[in-house]
Amino acid sequence: MGNADNGEYGSAASHRVAHPPPQPFVTSLRNTLKETLFPDDPLRQFKNQPARRKVVLGLQYFFPILEWGPRYTLDSFKSDLIAGITIASLAIPQGISYAKLANLPPILGLYSSFVPPLIYAVMGSSRDLAVGTVAVGSLLMGSMLGTVVNASEVPKLYLHLAFTATFVAGLFEAALGIFRLGFIVDFLSHATIVGFMSGAATVVCLQQLKGLLGLDHFTHATDVLSVMRSVFTQTHKWRWESAALGLVFLFYLMLARYFIGELKKGINPSSVMDLNFDSKYLPVAIKTGIVTGIIALAEGIAVGRSFAMFKNYHIDGNKEMIAFGMMNIAGSCTSCYLTAGPFSRSAVNFNAGCKTAVSNIVMALAVMITLLFLTPLFHYTPIVVLSSIIIAAMLGLIDYQAAIHLWHVDKFDFFVCITAYVGVVFSSIEVALVLAIGLSIMRILLFVARPKTLLLGNIPDSKVFRNIDHYQNARNVPGVIILEIDSPIYFANSNYLRERILRWIIDEEERLKSLKETSLQYVVLDMSAVGNIDTSGISMLDEVKKIVDRRGLKLMMVNPGAEVMKKLNKSKILETIGEEWIFLTVGEAVGACNYMLHSCTQQMKSHESDKQYNNV
Amino acid sequence: MGNADNGEYGSAASHRVAHPPPQPFVTSLRNTLKETLFPDDPLRQFKNQPARRKVVLGLQYFFPILEWGPRYTLDSFKSDLIAGITIASLAIPQGISYAKLANLPPILGLYSSFVPPLIYAVMGSSRDLAVGTVAVGSLLMGSMLGTVVNASEVPKLYLHLAFTATFVAGLFEAALGIFRLGFIVDFLSHATIVGFMSGAATVVCLQQLKGLLGLDHFTHATDVLSVMRSVFTQTHKWRWESAALGLVFLFYLMLARYFIGELKKGINPSSVMDLNFDSKYLPVAIKTGIVTGIIALAEGIAVGRSFAMFKNYHIDGNKEMIAFGMMNIAGSCTSCYLTAGPFSRSAVNFNAGCKTAVSNIVMALAVMITLLFLTPLFHYTPIVVLSSIIIAAMLGLIDYQAAIHLWHVDKFDFFVCITAYVGVVFSSIEVALVLAIGLSIMRILLFVARPKTLLLGNIPDSKVFRNIDHYQNARNVPGVIILEIDSPIYFANSNYLRERILRWIIDEEERLKSLKETSLQYVVLDMSAVGNIDTSGISMLDEVKKIVDRRGLKLMMVNPGAEVMKKLNKSKILETIGEEWIFLTVGEAVGACNYMLHSCTQQMKSHESDKQYNNV
Repeated sequence: MGNADNGEYGSAASHRVAHPPPQPFVTSLRNTLKETLFPDDPLRQFKNQPARRKVVLGLQYFFPILEWGPRYTLDSFKSDLIAGITIASLAIPQGISYAKLANLPPILGLYSSFVPPLIYAVMGSSRDLAVGTVAVGSLLMGSMLGTVVNASEVPKLYLHLAFTATFVAGLFEAALGIFRLGFIVDFLSHATIVGFMSGAATVVCLQQLKGLLGLDHFTHATDVLSVMRSVFTQTHKWRWESAALGLVFLFYLMLARYFIGELKKGINPSSVMDLNFDSKYLPVAIKTGIVTGIIALAEGIAVGRSFAMFKNYHIDGNKEMIAFGMMNIAGSCTSCYLTAGPFSRSAVNFNAGCKTAVSNIVMALAVMITLLFLTPLFHYTPIVVLSSIIIAAMLGLIDYQAAIHLWHVDKFDFFVCITAYVGVVFSSIEVALVLAIGLSIMRILLFVARPKTLLLGNIPDSKVFRNIDHYQNARNVPGVIILEIDSPIYFANSNYLRERILRWIIDEEERLKSLKETSLQYVVLDMSAVGNIDTSGISMLDEVKKIVDRRGLKLMMVNPGAEVMKKLNKSKILETIGEEWIFLTVGEAVGACNYMLHSCTQQMKSHESDKQYNNV
Repeated sequence: MGNADNGEYGSAASHRVAHPPPQPFVTSLRNTLKETLFPDDPLRQFKNQPARRKVVLGLQYFFPILEWGPRYTLDSFKSDLIAGITIASLAIPQGISYAKLANLPPILGLYSSFVPPLIYAVMGSSRDLAVGTVAVGSLLMGSMLGTVVNASEVPKLYLHLAFTATFVAGLFEAALGIFRLGFIVDFLSHATIVGFMSGAATVVCLQQLKGLLGLDHFTHATDVLSVMRSVFTQTHKWRWESAALGLVFLFYLMLARYFIGELKKGINPSSVMDLNFDSKYLPVAIKTGIVTGIIALAEGIAVGRSFAMFKNYHIDGNKEMIAFGMMNIAGSCTSCYLTAGPFSRSAVNFNAGCKTAVSNIVMALAVMITLLFLTPLFHYTPIVVLSSIIIAAMLGLIDYQAAIHLWHVDKFDFFVCITAYVGVVFSSIEVALVLAIGLSIMRILLFVARPKTLLLGNIPDSKVFRNIDHYQNARNVPGVIILEIDSPIYFANSNYLRERILRWIIDEEERLKSLKETSLQYVVLDMSAVGNIDTSGISMLDEVKKIVDRRGLKLMMVNPGAEVMKKLNKSKILETIGEEWIFLTVGEAVGACNYMLHSCTQQMKSHESDKQYNNV
């Protein structure tokens, strides 16, 4: 904030604010679009390459396996093999548990750990992400579809809707990636995700009371109140043994009737015919697809990015989205439901020392073998075990340290986080998301609608000017008020800024009057931090100029950026202000003020002396 | 943008980035709220005043007439009298016309020019605003209520709903003012209003074809298609004489049956009992009230502000809203419908040389006299005249010059403007508003989601650093890349910024390699324009630090603002970066780089010489 001078006032004039080189509308539009949609400039590598090479690069772009495949070594395979088998052993019980979380047949959990990982291995750009169903996604799907169709009454319809929702999620994810709209996911702030995940985890844990207490009937609602109600309304049905001695009596439970139901041998049957686009259910399918899709993306990409950070390689958000999308589209046609990159599984994968996405292939094959020969073994998996698996996984998601960190660093983020949490726990997942995202966006709008205007002062023994609230030692310059505008000037803040600047001037005038100091003469606006300006902003500056003139003051402007300079020029405001009153640095502007103030007093003095002379 | 150095590198260390003085959470929260809700600090004048004086000031705040009333002179009254009579003569035909625009009994136009002006005269802070019904507001009310109730079939119900909508509008306006939410109106950008008004004007003019062509049956829809349909489907009913010779045959028309219907003598009857809160119609009444209310506010306040600019006095937006609100609440209880400050009438008032709001009182009294004795005269006002009055007024609202100006200065604003226009003309008023406001907000979000990162270079013969694209003569410093971040760092842009900064570094490294220049050593981030940062932004900086370290480069930071500095500190990132790597100006940072680069080469040289020495 603020600027400093380049030495002697004399030489100040030699450095002027430049007019940005003219740029045809089309060019600037193209640049803007490029910066907005292709920040990572993916076509860079294609520049001046032979056509054949371009094709190869293109294929490698969409199928990263073509890039790292050829360089794949036996050593890497050893590591990937171990990692793959490890995550497979986790994938099977986890898959079964999450499927039940989504009120879907447990076998779907296994199916979903077979096809999607293979596709991700070919298209994904993360080396550590382990693909599979995700707890929050499963919960979301369960609760959202549950509002329209009852899984226990019409299981077939419910199942088909789950496939359809998965299909929609896939389409949506792929579309985001293809149209380079990855940044939409960015609007799920870290704070939102922390609060949301913790909330979801809490809800899931509560849901597990069903399994732990061995209750047969349970609410489909996810909010804490209805869960508690359905827990305490059936106290007589509580199975204390399964609750208290759940894990001890594992064996007893094994023999008891708590099996998870039919698990038929064989790999994924096709489910293309099951996709249900009946207009009666399409709305809920689309809604579920989009919400679950974007949440899955946010989690998956976050997980992928964090591991990429560790190993210092780069992940292309948009590419990941396409991979996730394809994964779910293919999944929805092969009896899988929503898959992404669950944190727990990816962490295990990472710790097991995976090297590439091959670990996903290994896992997929392991799961396939299980599906072909070993499924009967899982027939007797006791629900209580699944419940404990889920709870264990969930407790990891309740990230209270993160919440504390938020409170310390940024109170507003903490508030957003808590909103998301409370929203999920006491109301519904959709409500929580809308609230949290709404708050986050409101913050941005408020930042622009109520920008800071900072009073700058001179740092002693320097020509640097800084905010006097921040730099206690900064001194204001007699006769000059220096204001810095701290945001773009848009319709949303132009009225506010006019009022605020006027008030700064009035306050300063009153202060000086009360102190009987040199009266205010110059108003310097430091535009360094004004990134952009629209027509409302331009007319605001025009009005400020009028106001300042009427008060007999002089308006100076410091360091307007290229955008601002261009618009000042086009709108002719530049002429009204006078280009000689626009300076490159605050130092130069203040230098000019002092120079003029000085010469004035000189004239007055000489005038006085003349008088005296005449009186003689 | 960027910063310059304060002279010798030696002295650089003497100026450090300060830690902002600690501020308890409550204090900072209170300040934020104050800045957000009370930017004009209305309580300022109350400070250290005796209690009695405070009461007086308080009354004067809510009833400005108490402030200027005592100082009111006879001269001012002469001017106000003339102005008042002038606008009264305009108010009567205009009132009748606009009432018909809203499908309301013409007499309401007169009623609405009696009570509301009196209230505004007491509570309003503008001296030039002439109160009355507004064309766009009337059109809006007509079209919005028309969708639910047909004015010609159930006129009574329609009338009562109009009163109710006005009441709601009043409540809403007053609430905005009382809760200091005036800035919500600011989200109607200048561009939106221009486009919207022009569109509405176009629609109104088309509606007048009914009157001009003397058609009896006409559509209630406002979009151009349905209007054209109902015009060309009744070509056989066209009254060519009234169309072509409308104004010539004024006399003929006078005698013809085109009278405007019953105008009974007497001033406003009470309509308190007519307010209709039947749950069946409440939704439409509320919707209409809010939309018309906010539009009326936007127009009225804009008009008031622009005249205040001419005469150099101040208008308090929130106070105005309360005045408008009270005006409409009272109006809705005295057979008036939505009133505001129509531009046409206010302009006449201004040109007629009004001095204070007394001109409104004069107008009100003139209208009252008319209501008491002269209404029969207006019984034979020919519709064609009204139509021409409206069209004349409307054509003034189609501000194509403004649109051209928008195109020249800011293409996006032009786009918003056109969207609003097309929306109103081809679809509906609500759609147009939602689209235009949505676009404007999207622009703000996009500015934050895709901030500029500017490459800075040194301006020759100075220690000033500026954007290389803007200042063609700026030269980059060997071995150092200086990036300026041009917006607050929030969740919405932290991912983008990380990618973008990384890409800048890679590009620079490649460029230097290709040029065989000194390889990149230092990455300087100029945070001058970063107004604020949230936790996502903080962790982004942390990741950037990691990336830079891994590439064997050194990260430096320049001039973080108070907010940023506070959060860097709280989040311990400051330690990770090392406070000695945070500089007050770019110049100092670059100075330090050069110093270190220099000393390195020195060491190498001496090392070499040692070698040679040994070889000897």
